[in-house]
Amino acid sequence: MKVRILVRLKPGVLDPQGRAVHHALEGMGFAGVEDVRVGRMIDLDVADGTSDEALDDMCRKLLANMVIENYEIQKLSETEAA
Amino acid sequence: MKVRILVRLKPGVLDPQGRAVHHALEGMGFAGVEDVRVGRMIDLDVADGTSDEALDDMCRKLLANMVIENYEIQKLSETEAA
Repeated sequence: MKVRILVRLKPGVLDPQGRAVHHALEGMGFAGVEDVRVGRMIDLDVADGTSDEALDDMCRKLLANMVIENYEIQKLSETEAA
Repeated sequence: MKVRILVRLKPGVLDPQGRAVHHALEGMGFAGVEDVRVGRMIDLDVADGTSDEALDDMCRKLLANMVIENYEIQKLSETEAA
């Protein structure tokens, strides 16, 4: 089973990496960029029987820093996972 | 307009970060994890008229390293972007 975890900074948390990317895009002449936030994507290939609780647990204990980050779990169909 | 860029390593490219996460998950007792790949998610808030070509250009020139990475552009509806 393919699972995608998206980890992003909570709203209001300063994102220096996003700001750097924003600044770089403007410097390269791309107009109209209003905001940039950078996060992580973690693609897991797990056994089919893996429970939602186990996935939640992985996120809370290792993949996301719950103090400053949120996570979102997406189960991918076979076509999306390609 | 909210746009999400997903940047991932091309298949076959060694992913030490993914391997470290995989190893850590196993060490924490999570069974059934077969593979882990770590990538980046970049959420852009761009002007509504921004063309697909401009977005492609941003990815190729700055956001992804085309030698070892692929990117995927997703346009988010307002609900998804929340």
